[in-house]
Amino acid sequence: MFFLGGAATAPHQKRRVSLVISGGVVVTVDRDRRILDPGSIAVDGDRIVAVDRPEMIANTFEAHESIDARGRAVMPGLINTHTHAPMVLYRGLADDLSLMEWLQKYIFPAEAKTVSPEFVRAGTRLAALEMIRSGTTTYADMYYFEEEVAAATKNAGLRAVLGQTIVQFPAPDAKSPADGLNRAEQFIQTWQRDDLISPAVAPHSMYTLDRRALLACRDLGVRYGVPVLIHLAETRDELRLSRKAHRASPTAYLESIDFWRPRTVAAHGVWVSQPDIAILKRRGVGVSHNPESNMKLASGIAPVVQLRGAGVPVGLGTDGAASNNDLDMFEAMRQASFLAKLDTRNPRTLSASEAIAMATIEGARALGMDRDLGSLEPGKKADVILVSLAAARQTPVYHVVSHLVYVTRGDDVQTTIVNGRIVMREGKVQTLQEARVLAEARTMADRVRAAVR
Amino acid sequence: MFFLGGAATAPHQKRRVSLVISGGVVVTVDRDRRILDPGSIAVDGDRIVAVDRPEMIANTFEAHESIDARGRAVMPGLINTHTHAPMVLYRGLADDLSLMEWLQKYIFPAEAKTVSPEFVRAGTRLAALEMIRSGTTTYADMYYFEEEVAAATKNAGLRAVLGQTIVQFPAPDAKSPADGLNRAEQFIQTWQRDDLISPAVAPHSMYTLDRRALLACRDLGVRYGVPVLIHLAETRDELRLSRKAHRASPTAYLESIDFWRPRTVAAHGVWVSQPDIAILKRRGVGVSHNPESNMKLASGIAPVVQLRGAGVPVGLGTDGAASNNDLDMFEAMRQASFLAKLDTRNPRTLSASEAIAMATIEGARALGMDRDLGSLEPGKKADVILVSLAAARQTPVYHVVSHLVYVTRGDDVQTTIVNGRIVMREGKVQTLQEARVLAEARTMADRVRAAVR
Repeated sequence: MFFLGGAATAPHQKRRVSLVISGGVVVTVDRDRRILDPGSIAVDGDRIVAVDRPEMIANTFEAHESIDARGRAVMPGLINTHTHAPMVLYRGLADDLSLMEWLQKYIFPAEAKTVSPEFVRAGTRLAALEMIRSGTTTYADMYYFEEEVAAATKNAGLRAVLGQTIVQFPAPDAKSPADGLNRAEQFIQTWQRDDLISPAVAPHSMYTLDRRALLACRDLGVRYGVPVLIHLAETRDELRLSRKAHRASPTAYLESIDFWRPRTVAAHGVWVSQPDIAILKRRGVGVSHNPESNMKLASGIAPVVQLRGAGVPVGLGTDGAASNNDLDMFEAMRQASFLAKLDTRNPRTLSASEAIAMATIEGARALGMDRDLGSLEPGKKADVILVSLAAARQTPVYHVVSHLVYVTRGDDVQTTIVNGRIVMREGKVQTLQEARVLAEARTMADRVRAAVR
Repeated sequence: MFFLGGAATAPHQKRRVSLVISGGVVVTVDRDRRILDPGSIAVDGDRIVAVDRPEMIANTFEAHESIDARGRAVMPGLINTHTHAPMVLYRGLADDLSLMEWLQKYIFPAEAKTVSPEFVRAGTRLAALEMIRSGTTTYADMYYFEEEVAAATKNAGLRAVLGQTIVQFPAPDAKSPADGLNRAEQFIQTWQRDDLISPAVAPHSMYTLDRRALLACRDLGVRYGVPVLIHLAETRDELRLSRKAHRASPTAYLESIDFWRPRTVAAHGVWVSQPDIAILKRRGVGVSHNPESNMKLASGIAPVVQLRGAGVPVGLGTDGAASNNDLDMFEAMRQASFLAKLDTRNPRTLSASEAIAMATIEGARALGMDRDLGSLEPGKKADVILVSLAAARQTPVYHVVSHLVYVTRGDDVQTTIVNGRIVMREGKVQTLQEARVLAEARTMADRVRAAVR
């Protein structure tokens, strides 16, 4: 469908733009949480140039390409603030186990024997396929061989904040933290001017790195002005360990060594106290809330209401698919809302609208990217998804925001646009050969099976 | 694909059966939790006659019709032990509210102005569509105009346990409990010999009925040998109210008036103590656990581990879609597992295998129907679903049981068989005209909108 102009306006008066998405229920997630029903969006190149009523857009712009969004919800692409993309290849390998048994009997042996550049590439492709299909347009990642993650993500047309993982013990891609830091620096230098990939540093956690390595990670982040991604206070054991070793909570310990800097994203933040929250706020740290992983691994409930109340930006994450077991951000939204309601014994807590904000603009804020991402507003990057509302499960529709959180699944996403480029159109992924990606993943899974036999 | 016999066996030696489902990963949920990979199932008429390896079934049976299940999981149809089917028409009408505000400002006014036989019929059709699509083959229901629910369910080819609701206050279909009881008795008489519909009595709860009405419901159930469905100890308010009025918990109060009989299903059971659990066990009462509704309405966490540990059969339910907001039993399984792990701070609690058992055989046991339903075994009713495992989100597959709970959605169900009849084949519902059902639901939604304006 092309907008060729109405009777009142001649085509030559219109501005030519690359893409118009027209006639959907547009959930902007802007400051006023405006919903345009119907609304249209004009995109030129990689940016949104206008969000308005369909007739206004039709009268103002002439589109090179148009997408008819009638009957669909149109919303900002979802931002997954914490995952380990290649771990999709360990999805469901072992469940229903204590964390230690899971790690020591399954994940560590599997990783030791299978993680390679090839494995990471295949895993990232599979993860990218799943994310594009379920409406994630930006994700934050920490894993090994992150240069392979970057290349595969870029090829898939996805946006990502990618952190080369640093741990104290020998990792699949680095013998020591120093080695890891070298790799991380190279990685940053390679990718720092990319349009889709934002390189980051990912010190694994305060319990898997010594003080020196933690501070070296901080310094690397500061030197290049890139984000720092770290696990924080995920389990009660971590809290106990930290108290025993440092007489302080993980958050307070990291404060005591002056680790915290802005543009740091702390994943989980389950076991944080009010003083910890005050530290995170003062230091401008963002938090990634991972409700599904925290439930499945029985880690606990992050104090999301207190964190947000204190002004800490809290995004949502899925965690790796080995512990979730998928990358569906719609599930993360629903779970965040359900869990907060249960935790506070108040069904008004964390409304559908707030869950959507966390999965979009707040996630962008946590990553320090809210100038460009997280809402549908002129000037922002064109990361947009179109979501079907036609399923029996979604009928009838009274409030689109409620439906997006409480009855929508990742599979309802039909079209995914990243940086102005259509990476999935009506359910057909444009940037990956789906059958090949799935076949490749199955081959890798055979290796994993052999490794844990 | 027809099995026309191999070289070694002549066709005339084979037993003719109506249907063979061949070559899937068969999750039997029998006593040994056997998984046949691959396996086949022979069905004759409404019953399963054999579950075995494909070559055994192929050599023994000649099928009138065959379904190729290769690459799919084949499992018992799911049993939703608690819902209010027609309330799908209020789905998402109002969320994120306290229970009282939700009821008094939205649900009660909407019900008062919109519930009619026509409304209930349209709502049940929509619910049946959603249930067939998501693999539910049996559901327990309590609502008004249950005769309309029965007729629509029967037409859709679904199995159900349907209870005419009795409440103290005037209901849309009955002025008084006596009126409701009359309607309930008529309803039982009409449907008591039906193959798909099991009539039941549904006293709403101990706080919406007086002692006399509660006991009359009990007597009606006993007289006709039908199940009794009741809400029990859903909220802390109910517990407080009961303690104040009767100096006893809801469970203990109902015990004190001698209400409990076998084949009673108590929905929710959130606020039950150990002595309450002992009562439920002694009285042979089943419980319906509704984890999503309990989280979304912030009701609390049912002590599922203690209930099951005491030997109380605990099935899963979605509750009505006005408070969930869907009827997806795969979500209910996942949520039951996640919630129990979190509650017990133990990731080993309520494994995927246990979640599947709750959604099938334990649900059947709670409803007193486990002789006929809940597992794939010779002699049982042929209620079977075929589930795709092909999505990116489900790749790779290490353990089918893990995948069915942790990464599968209702939408992955491809084929649904109830009582030996294929009600959905490869995503196409055979018993309902989908477009018409959805259009009808939208028309009803317009009336709801007008009613709560």
